[in-house]
Amino acid sequence: MMRFGLLGAGRIGRIHGLNVAARSDAQLVALSDASAEAAASLAQASGAKVATTDAILADSGIDAVVICTPTDTHADLIEAAVSAGKAVFCEKPVDLDAGRIRRCLEVVAKSGKPLMIGFNRRFDPNFAALEGRLRSGEAGAIEIVSVISRDPGPPPVEYVKRSGGLFRDMMIHDFDMARFLLAEEPVEVFALGSALVDPAIGQAGDVDTAAVLMRTASGRIAQISNSRRATYGYDQRIEVHGSKGMLRAGNIHETTVEIATGAGFRADPVQNFFLERYAAAYRAELDAFITACRDKRAPSPSGLDGLKAQILADAATESRRTGKPVAVALEAL
Amino acid sequence: MMRFGLLGAGRIGRIHGLNVAARSDAQLVALSDASAEAAASLAQASGAKVATTDAILADSGIDAVVICTPTDTHADLIEAAVSAGKAVFCEKPVDLDAGRIRRCLEVVAKSGKPLMIGFNRRFDPNFAALEGRLRSGEAGAIEIVSVISRDPGPPPVEYVKRSGGLFRDMMIHDFDMARFLLAEEPVEVFALGSALVDPAIGQAGDVDTAAVLMRTASGRIAQISNSRRATYGYDQRIEVHGSKGMLRAGNIHETTVEIATGAGFRADPVQNFFLERYAAAYRAELDAFITACRDKRAPSPSGLDGLKAQILADAATESRRTGKPVAVALEAL
Amino acid sequence: MMRFGLLGAGRIGRIHGLNVAARSDAQLVALSDASAEAAASLAQASGAKVATTDAILADSGIDAVVICTPTDTHADLIEAAVSAGKAVFCEKPVDLDAGRIRRCLEVVAKSGKPLMIGFNRRFDPNFAALEGRLRSGEAGAIEIVSVISRDPGPPPVEYVKRSGGLFRDMMIHDFDMARFLLAEEPVEVFALGSALVDPAIGQAGDVDTAAVLMRTASGRIAQISNSRRATYGYDQRIEVHGSKGMLRAGNIHETTVEIATGAGFRADPVQNFFLERYAAAYRAELDAFITACRDKRAPSPSGLDGLKAQILADAATESRRTGKPVAVALEAL
Amino acid sequence: MMRFGLLGAGRIGRIHGLNVAARSDAQLVALSDASAEAAASLAQASGAKVATTDAILADSGIDAVVICTPTDTHADLIEAAVSAGKAVFCEKPVDLDAGRIRRCLEVVAKSGKPLMIGFNRRFDPNFAALEGRLRSGEAGAIEIVSVISRDPGPPPVEYVKRSGGLFRDMMIHDFDMARFLLAEEPVEVFALGSALVDPAIGQAGDVDTAAVLMRTASGRIAQISNSRRATYGYDQRIEVHGSKGMLRAGNIHETTVEIATGAGFRADPVQNFFLERYAAAYRAELDAFITACRDKRAPSPSGLDGLKAQILADAATESRRTGKPVAVALEAL
Repeated sequence: MMRFGLLGAGRIGRIHGLNVAARSDAQLVALSDASAEAAASLAQASGAKVATTDAILADSGIDAVVICTPTDTHADLIEAAVSAGKAVFCEKPVDLDAGRIRRCLEVVAKSGKPLMIGFNRRFDPNFAALEGRLRSGEAGAIEIVSVISRDPGPPPVEYVKRSGGLFRDMMIHDFDMARFLLAEEPVEVFALGSALVDPAIGQAGDVDTAAVLMRTASGRIAQISNSRRATYGYDQRIEVHGSKGMLRAGNIHETTVEIATGAGFRADPVQNFFLERYAAAYRAELDAFITACRDKRAPSPSGLDGLKAQILADAATESRRTGKPVAVALEAL
Repeated sequence: MMRFGLLGAGRIGRIHGLNVAARSDAQLVALSDASAEAAASLAQASGAKVATTDAILADSGIDAVVICTPTDTHADLIEAAVSAGKAVFCEKPVDLDAGRIRRCLEVVAKSGKPLMIGFNRRFDPNFAALEGRLRSGEAGAIEIVSVISRDPGPPPVEYVKRSGGLFRDMMIHDFDMARFLLAEEPVEVFALGSALVDPAIGQAGDVDTAAVLMRTASGRIAQISNSRRATYGYDQRIEVHGSKGMLRAGNIHETTVEIATGAGFRADPVQNFFLERYAAAYRAELDAFITACRDKRAPSPSGLDGLKAQILADAATESRRTGKPVAVALEAL
Repeated sequence: MMRFGLLGAGRIGRIHGLNVAARSDAQLVALSDASAEAAASLAQASGAKVATTDAILADSGIDAVVICTPTDTHADLIEAAVSAGKAVFCEKPVDLDAGRIRRCLEVVAKSGKPLMIGFNRRFDPNFAALEGRLRSGEAGAIEIVSVISRDPGPPPVEYVKRSGGLFRDMMIHDFDMARFLLAEEPVEVFALGSALVDPAIGQAGDVDTAAVLMRTASGRIAQISNSRRATYGYDQRIEVHGSKGMLRAGNIHETTVEIATGAGFRADPVQNFFLERYAAAYRAELDAFITACRDKRAPSPSGLDGLKAQILADAATESRRTGKPVAVALEAL
Repeated sequence: MMRFGLLGAGRIGRIHGLNVAARSDAQLVALSDASAEAAASLAQASGAKVATTDAILADSGIDAVVICTPTDTHADLIEAAVSAGKAVFCEKPVDLDAGRIRRCLEVVAKSGKPLMIGFNRRFDPNFAALEGRLRSGEAGAIEIVSVISRDPGPPPVEYVKRSGGLFRDMMIHDFDMARFLLAEEPVEVFALGSALVDPAIGQAGDVDTAAVLMRTASGRIAQISNSRRATYGYDQRIEVHGSKGMLRAGNIHETTVEIATGAGFRADPVQNFFLERYAAAYRAELDAFITACRDKRAPSPSGLDGLKAQILADAATESRRTGKPVAVALEAL
């Protein structure tokens, strides 16, 4: 029985908290949140007690913490938690600043405690199955990895201003997915971006429509495209072209119902909300964390994976600003 | 808070028991099972206590019972439960004998207690959405209803011998689905059946491959086909052809992954196991029962729906035996 | 070089005539039609001369005739043509009366000349490929054959009155397809039919919505359903369930374009017109006729295939009238 | 009746020649080819006479010429043909050198004769329908255009050496398609390319796997990816993401047959050969040329479209060589 503390009981914290509580091999002991209301609500639903973050970190009966607080607190909390001897699962990103991530990872390394970063899409049953089949060689040698990621609608401009920009806030998932699938580190990033969805996003200095090209040392190519708006749902697709064939994984429609009329054949929109689309992924990712901790293996994706995705996001941000491709050296990390 | 007792903690009982226990507006108080081991296992997982059936029925703190015992006990338990003042959710079928069902429903009617029958497929999100859109007129007037239902593999012959035969054991779900979609009662049933999957099933006097045609008074047509074996998974499809168009709902593949090679484009098999395929349906069906009880509405599908499906299954069984179509008079019930 | 005469230059005659003219190993020498205008138009397009039917049959330079005249002239023309030493390709049906077909086939047999019947769907590249793969054992032993056939819209009632009824006029294609796929003769036919599309069709004594169940001696099952109206195009699907798997072949959409919006994902209607849907089939069927004649093999589908489909259509018509299944003895023919 | 001469009776010349010959409003009068055998074969099949190129250009009875000779002869032949008063349809590209194209187009402009370039994919019924619906606003404002183009297998290295490189030989079609769909000129091109399919292609200085990103002045983004090898057929897909939704058009499978077994659901590979995949496109493109000439409208795609695609291909070639994005100024042309 692994005993958990949860830091942050917002939307994603609630998901992780209830997933912990639903397991027979884990217990959600305590949770903290700046909002007493959010904390109380999740405490009631999960059977955990409300506590302060300090009390949770000081509680020797707690083995692991899940960090779902605002991004700018992640690095400090990771450091405090590993220093207090906890295994840590932290929502992405570790920090918006790669230097800060590096220092945090050094603290983690010295502590010897496990750290896992919440790149949930690796655990989507469809994407995970694709990756497994890719690894087994079903598509042969990897040549072109394509990732399409489109949100149903743009976030508020106030959120955008604090987000670090589309490449760090949204495309970071796709950078991680590209690395996951390429099986070789990108060495160069070129990015384009525009504010086509909401001019206010452009005025805030960010983009809402973007595309990236990356290459690896051996010449593999990754394409990523993002939009902050897709009228037909939350569009999440990957496709890998290899020497033996193509593997792809697509969206999940709301139902399997189809209507055929003179206007044609119409299927449902795809699942619209990330908590629904990735519900199974969140459960599987927690399972991977618990299993790795129990088996005393380093959990994956690691803090280093978090750093590498951040470096790619930084490179894309710079490329988009300067109009030039940016070299990255992830192998050396 | 609705308080439940569960009679029968086998495969399907476990599903319902855990679904009750997972709700915030219901509590699984007690459960009984002939197997002490099965009872203890589910008691631990759900937090319910183990009790005898008699004690559960005698417990005035229990509002409702879920009956998941062997078929030949259903009618007696329904009668005992409603007589003890419980609302009842009973797995299909009420009984393999329509006369016995009729007598049971009379007891239920006199008790004034609600009875719902577990035709879970009505609550599958895909089929329920299709039915709702059909009712809204999207396909116009209903003309041809087609139901395809194929199990991954045949049950043991020992099970077949006690099952009442394919039409009562397997196709009964499809008779209910056809009635659900036709929105008009069938008046005639013609059935064909063969033992093509397993000769032992034929030697036991049953069939494993079957098809039925039904018509309603106004001339609507229903087609049903069943097989006890589908190599590619649990095949569950419905299609309704109407004056304005066609509505259909299909299978759910294990993942969305697709591989393309020189051999073509290959998608996964469809979900193989009914507990997985219909997991959401079981939750929705329980929700419908609880909501109906709470709102003091008669739950649906009712005991009468159970009787009508059984009469259609009996008619198909007779048609297959005699080689002649069999008239049924469901409207009069 | 095979030299052809064409009897009947209407819609389907024009197709066959132009297909003959487009081949490098065949020549359309002459054609006849009751309408001088239709004859002249096709003569100009094909390079053939206009002639009388008698002159065509008397022309010793003509090796084969294609018969596309009204149904009630087919049997007489077949007899005249084979007696004049021509190979004959005749559009289905040979006649609406099975007895007349039998007598005609005796004349053909005595003549020793080849006769092929235009069941074009066997030559559809999709259906032909499915049948070939079924024969190769890909789906294992055949268990359930399902044929769905829905026309875009009903014919004029005047046509319906002279048509012999839906089972002989429309479903006859599906009876042939079911025989083609079952690889064993049906021994029993049960039919339902309604006039749901156009009440005038019902007043004319016919149906526009129908379904049939057939079984073979070994217990294979065939399902057929027909509607005279499908809002979404010309719906032509087959599905075969076997011991090793399921083979199916579907419709062809007008284009591959798909639009995704908040209303869902919408593909085009399916090809609406039989001449477009089966264009490749008509070419392949002519090729099969020419090849069989050249190689001195009996062409397929044969006159006997035409007779058997007609007997099934008669049985369905009788079953629908009497409400009883009708036994047929095709093996003995 | 428009009278055609054909220069070049190879694989693509034969397609155009037979398409001209099959029309009722056009006549293939004469054809020339360096290979007497190729010329004679097509002359027999089409009814045209064999002539020299000079004789064809000098024949005042010929209205138009179709140029299907090797690329390095295109510009000279276009100039000669328009100077001889012919309307010209020329296979892409006009030349591998943009400067030579410019000079050629000046000669065409002075002649006042129409010139159309064979970007056949614009006339594919699927892509043309998509473009029409895009223009009608169905997907709203255009944001991201994605073009995937993968050949079944790489050409011989000898061909590659003379081809001008992948960007000019293969991706030029996709540059034209991107321009066709973007409805705004690209202003910048960034390209990646690798030799992953055949090392000999890399040794010859070319790539066989490539991806390009382009942006327009208003911020629209185009993604293109190419591979010289796709095991599953000739992969030709386009997708346009817009403010109101997504429009896409996909591949055509060899048949609609699908097999379902324990290994999953398997559909056919996609059509493998460009002459088959684009057969309808070649007919429609010829029709567009003839119609434009008859209506005295400038045919489209024009020589200028050919020049612009070439400039994009040159820019991509340079970008790939230098590792830097390359600005282009197509609006000014």
